[in-house]
Amino acid sequence: MSKTIAINAGSSSLKWQLYKMPEEEVLAAGLIERIGLKDSVSTVKFDGRKEEQVLDIEDHVQAVKILLDDLIRFEIIAAYDEITGVGHRVVAGGEIFKESVLIEGDVLAQIEELSALAPLHNPANAAGIRAFKELLPDITSVAVFDTAFHTTMNDYTYLYPIPRKYYTEHQVRKYGAHGTSHQYVAGEAAKLLGKPLDQIKVITAHIGNGVSITANYHGESKDTSMGFTPLAGPMMGTRSGDIDPAIIPYLIEHDPELNDAAAVINVLNKQSGLAGVSAISSDMRDILAGVENGDENAIVAYKMFIDRVQKYIGQYFAVLNGADALVFTAGIGENAVALRRDVVAGLSWFGMEIDPEKNVFGYTGDITTADSKVKVLVIPTDEELVIARDVERLK
Amino acid sequence: MSKTIAINAGSSSLKWQLYKMPEEEVLAAGLIERIGLKDSVSTVKFDGRKEEQVLDIEDHVQAVKILLDDLIRFEIIAAYDEITGVGHRVVAGGEIFKESVLIEGDVLAQIEELSALAPLHNPANAAGIRAFKELLPDITSVAVFDTAFHTTMNDYTYLYPIPRKYYTEHQVRKYGAHGTSHQYVAGEAAKLLGKPLDQIKVITAHIGNGVSITANYHGESKDTSMGFTPLAGPMMGTRSGDIDPAIIPYLIEHDPELNDAAAVINVLNKQSGLAGVSAISSDMRDILAGVENGDENAIVAYKMFIDRVQKYIGQYFAVLNGADALVFTAGIGENAVALRRDVVAGLSWFGMEIDPEKNVFGYTGDITTADSKVKVLVIPTDEELVIARDVERLK
Repeated sequence: MSKTIAINAGSSSLKWQLYKMPEEEVLAAGLIERIGLKDSVSTVKFDGRKEEQVLDIEDHVQAVKILLDDLIRFEIIAAYDEITGVGHRVVAGGEIFKESVLIEGDVLAQIEELSALAPLHNPANAAGIRAFKELLPDITSVAVFDTAFHTTMNDYTYLYPIPRKYYTEHQVRKYGAHGTSHQYVAGEAAKLLGKPLDQIKVITAHIGNGVSITANYHGESKDTSMGFTPLAGPMMGTRSGDIDPAIIPYLIEHDPELNDAAAVINVLNKQSGLAGVSAISSDMRDILAGVENGDENAIVAYKMFIDRVQKYIGQYFAVLNGADALVFTAGIGENAVALRRDVVAGLSWFGMEIDPEKNVFGYTGDITTADSKVKVLVIPTDEELVIARDVERLK
Repeated sequence: MSKTIAINAGSSSLKWQLYKMPEEEVLAAGLIERIGLKDSVSTVKFDGRKEEQVLDIEDHVQAVKILLDDLIRFEIIAAYDEITGVGHRVVAGGEIFKESVLIEGDVLAQIEELSALAPLHNPANAAGIRAFKELLPDITSVAVFDTAFHTTMNDYTYLYPIPRKYYTEHQVRKYGAHGTSHQYVAGEAAKLLGKPLDQIKVITAHIGNGVSITANYHGESKDTSMGFTPLAGPMMGTRSGDIDPAIIPYLIEHDPELNDAAAVINVLNKQSGLAGVSAISSDMRDILAGVENGDENAIVAYKMFIDRVQKYIGQYFAVLNGADALVFTAGIGENAVALRRDVVAGLSWFGMEIDPEKNVFGYTGDITTADSKVKVLVIPTDEELVIARDVERLK
């Protein structure tokens, strides 16, 4: 028996899940927030219990130390060496990492070099890796890349219609993101459809605070909505998604608060999307409440969100030349019943018809009527499990 | 009988077409190029003849003078006052102009004020208007806006997912372009389909050096691919179309030749698209020749172009929730037989099947098989005729 931990390290957070493998049983899960700030919070969930403590955590090494001590304190493990593997989510794998890899040799250095492609994420991911290396130097350590699943895209898809030198000299291309999620739910979709993954075409809509949609052809990513960065694609919680790029110099010229392109991109990443349009919240639950209350800004934000998601689904019906199923996953995709209803209602021509008795909170699986030619599936994503599986596979 | 002239003035060019109205008979057409430069060229076509003269033309007033003198010299008109109306294409009508208008009162000033939205085009359009006002002060003068047709879009479509103040304070929204072309071919499509325009759903693909695709619902523009500026949308001859906006600050930071956002947008407008990817040409004919010769860059550029057009078509099938027809128009759309074949071949699931015997050079109308559920139509666009009709209507 082995215990494997899946880690998702952010700049001030560390999300983790401990598995018994190969049984894929979740032993415990937790989240450490406000790392490097006062009053950091560590939460541990196990055996139906939830334990929380507030303390000051200086850095990722200390966070990992607290996490490991908690595992012992709550008798989830008896000793550190019960943990035989750790898998780290890494956002940007560039063109180097086409699949998960053991973290050895140059791998950590390469992950840090790829920080240019994910300046907020890769340094944090690397900090998580270093913290585990320091405290558990002997366990199997695996990097699982958000971008790896999308390395199957064709050149005419991942290249932008810009001078080639920006690709050859500066690595500007579509990388995509949420790869482990898209990969996982496509695999689950094949099971639900009762067909081999390599014989189906599926559009997977990962709709959380970040939104990405992927065209999955026979198990491989053929196109995905996030681009060079996670800004591209449909509208998101705080991100604009796609906009006319010419807006950027126009705003710099006309808005005295915006001095340069980086300032505009910051607005597009952090103050746009549902939050920017609604002026209420980046959270779909608040938007839906606003729609209920007849708030006009919420209604426009909601309609815009539906419209942008529908347009990507239509796009990927084109990329795949038809699809067997549409999958909804992630926070909004799994839980926002009204959103699923409204997205699919506007796409009835595509042969999708939702069964209102199945499209209810908590129901997962096929939510369409028997007559629906294209199936609509609700599949809870499990990025941590994909990470744990990759650790097990590479051990 | 009246004679009406349709004018499309660029910064250094003036394209014109003289109609006998209401018969809609083209009496003559011409193009004056290199205005303000040495060796300007004026070409006049009439009665199967083509006359060309090279001379120095200082400005738009002189260009219009030469055009009018040519009309007399070639006995197309006997006197200036035979021309009773002039229609001017204007690129940006903003939110002020929802339809064509008589140029009187503040109209010319408003067109000039809208130059912020089309800094290369509106000043040139205004120069054309002033030149005619000076030489033919008494004729009916009408402005026909490229954007007017798209003012029927819903707010959730034309607004971007960005903070609302950029719309309220700086007019940042989707305006679209090529409106007269989209409007014209949709009308012709209704005739070909034998149905009233207000009962059909049509996707009109204007594919020339600029590319824009419109979702036409019952005769109205419901969505269109060009955005705040004509940079947005699918890949074009020299324009990138949509890209992840975060590429802009990244390139500024990493490429020493690109100092600011305006410099990047200049590259995206002028050195990208087919030209940037192929490193051969912005002209689809050259790209197709390159594909024939097995040139790898041409092949990537061609496949990318097809992919981006297909994705917009798929999007608009979603926006319209199905469509009766897809229309190809403009230089490439009307003439590139291989491109039409390849775009539609990848969309067979949508119920479109091209008849190879009809998809040949010079054939216009329905090019699908009898079984094709969605029709594919080739319709030569005629923006000048729409302009002449609007002059006639507003006289």
